[in-house]
Amino acid sequence: MAYEFRANRMVEFSDTDMAGIMHFSNFFRFMETAEHGFYRSLGFSVAMEESLGLGWPRVKAECEYKHPLRFEDVVEIHIIVRKVGVRSIAFDFHFSKIEHGHRIEAATGRLTVVCVTRDPETGGMKSMPIPPEILEKIQSAPPALLSSHS
Amino acid sequence: MAYEFRANRMVEFSDTDMAGIMHFSNFFRFMETAEHGFYRSLGFSVAMEESLGLGWPRVKAECEYKHPLRFEDVVEIHIIVRKVGVRSIAFDFHFSKIEHGHRIEAATGRLTVVCVTRDPETGGMKSMPIPPEILEKIQSAPPALLSSHS
Amino acid sequence: MAYEFRANRMVEFSDTDMAGIMHFSNFFRFMETAEHGFYRSLGFSVAMEESLGLGWPRVKAECEYKHPLRFEDVVEIHIIVRKVGVRSIAFDFHFSKIEHGHRIEAATGRLTVVCVTRDPETGGMKSMPIPPEILEKIQSAPPALLSSHS
Amino acid sequence: MAYEFRANRMVEFSDTDMAGIMHFSNFFRFMETAEHGFYRSLGFSVAMEESLGLGWPRVKAECEYKHPLRFEDVVEIHIIVRKVGVRSIAFDFHFSKIEHGHRIEAATGRLTVVCVTRDPETGGMKSMPIPPEILEKIQSAPPALLSSHS
Repeated sequence: MAYEFRANRMVEFSDTDMAGIMHFSNFFRFMETAEHGFYRSLGFSVAMEESLGLGWPRVKAECEYKHPLRFEDVVEIHIIVRKVGVRSIAFDFHFSKIEHGHRIEAATGRLTVVCVTRDPETGGMKSMPIPPEILEKIQSAPPALLSSHS
Repeated sequence: MAYEFRANRMVEFSDTDMAGIMHFSNFFRFMETAEHGFYRSLGFSVAMEESLGLGWPRVKAECEYKHPLRFEDVVEIHIIVRKVGVRSIAFDFHFSKIEHGHRIEAATGRLTVVCVTRDPETGGMKSMPIPPEILEKIQSAPPALLSSHS
Repeated sequence: MAYEFRANRMVEFSDTDMAGIMHFSNFFRFMETAEHGFYRSLGFSVAMEESLGLGWPRVKAECEYKHPLRFEDVVEIHIIVRKVGVRSIAFDFHFSKIEHGHRIEAATGRLTVVCVTRDPETGGMKSMPIPPEILEKIQSAPPALLSSHS
Repeated sequence: MAYEFRANRMVEFSDTDMAGIMHFSNFFRFMETAEHGFYRSLGFSVAMEESLGLGWPRVKAECEYKHPLRFEDVVEIHIIVRKVGVRSIAFDFHFSKIEHGHRIEAATGRLTVVCVTRDPETGGMKSMPIPPEILEKIQSAPPALLSSHS
């Protein structure tokens, strides 16, 4: 049972904008990087699920920006499972980097993803309960971890 | 005095992902498109402000996804000024498209941007009051407009 | 029978990088924008073809950069059909913008796309002759047009 | 004196498009990743040069696509110095991945970058000879390496 994962990633030139910092939309791409790394750390993959007709569309995404990220910054993206529901998972994210020997928080984020399957009748997607083989690997983080970052 | 603007934009192939829909991070790029279009509609530009040493970094960004956007969908992004503060502006966004003759809501978003200037001492950015020439052009939307979308 | 199309597009903040200009990879996204606009001008769409099991992967892409594009520049992307082959189409692109009352060339590009269909046996893609209903709408540009830009 | 470098990178969900493969424009972002990794392996950085008023805009970029890249593919990007000129450097790139135990070539690329500095009179950029401290670290690859990939 896992509830957290840490991904490291370097800010690339193409992630920056003319203000000289990482474009704010790219924090959401980085969140997804950590999310998918978390899944892989548990032995499954979004790609595998696609072939099973399962998907994880986002229903909500948020980010609060505290300190800009710059080219070649090595960012740690700490993903924490806030809550596992019947059909959805809510993740928290903490972006940080080392600057002058100290770890500083660059941003916090949150994603809520919902488990869906393709509706054979309409061709659209409909929500479904998270399959047991995934549920048995993921759990909500202990309250202490969630609050320690606040 | 303005408090809203509508931008239209077509979803491009490069905006989609392997799930066949617009990647969730691109809604934030589209919000910024509408925001900058709003500024231009008032006769000023982020580019112009850059040369004045003024910037508008985002402090918070949010999106709720309701209906996927697909390649070649023509999306209306309706930006509404939720609140003009002394040093910040909060915007609401409504993404919609016409499907089978009806306008459907695809997503709602929110951005909070803060007015900053370069601190000559540290080289960093510090918040500052929004200049009067911008304040006199932008106002908060009437409460009726903000609630009508809820 | 058509052999050219002009798309106009504004450079967005998220298209720029920390050098203050449009990131060089985005010229390729802009080429595709013009390509898809060209298809739509002829009454068909890549999306439609996807449902027919037809695709147009790129086999070669090139760009020569002559003058940087900046935020809020309105760029004309002129796409010209260089050569229609049995299974492929080669396009030329000319990026230009108006500066101080003169149209200046920002870049030239080239894409070669190949017509493919899904191989029912392997699940992979294999090239196929361009369908007649597409061939009858697209032709190579007259040599004079191709050379006038050189 | 160095003339090559290998970067490894995983294809992310946001790198894919609705055709289920990495979008062709992202190969150029990946080339730049390898290029900047190469510079860092030599102890310098594009960021450092920016502060010196030096830049490396691209004058030409090319890619030939041979085999699609998919989500979670681990790609090796092998960058090789084709030619060091007085004011420019030409790089070759080889994209490959392991599939069923064999390394297969996914794409080849080429970038030509030119050394520029800001013209104090016009504010624009003008080309300049590559500084000696960079020239003494980079050399053209031996012809055998360049041809072995052909």
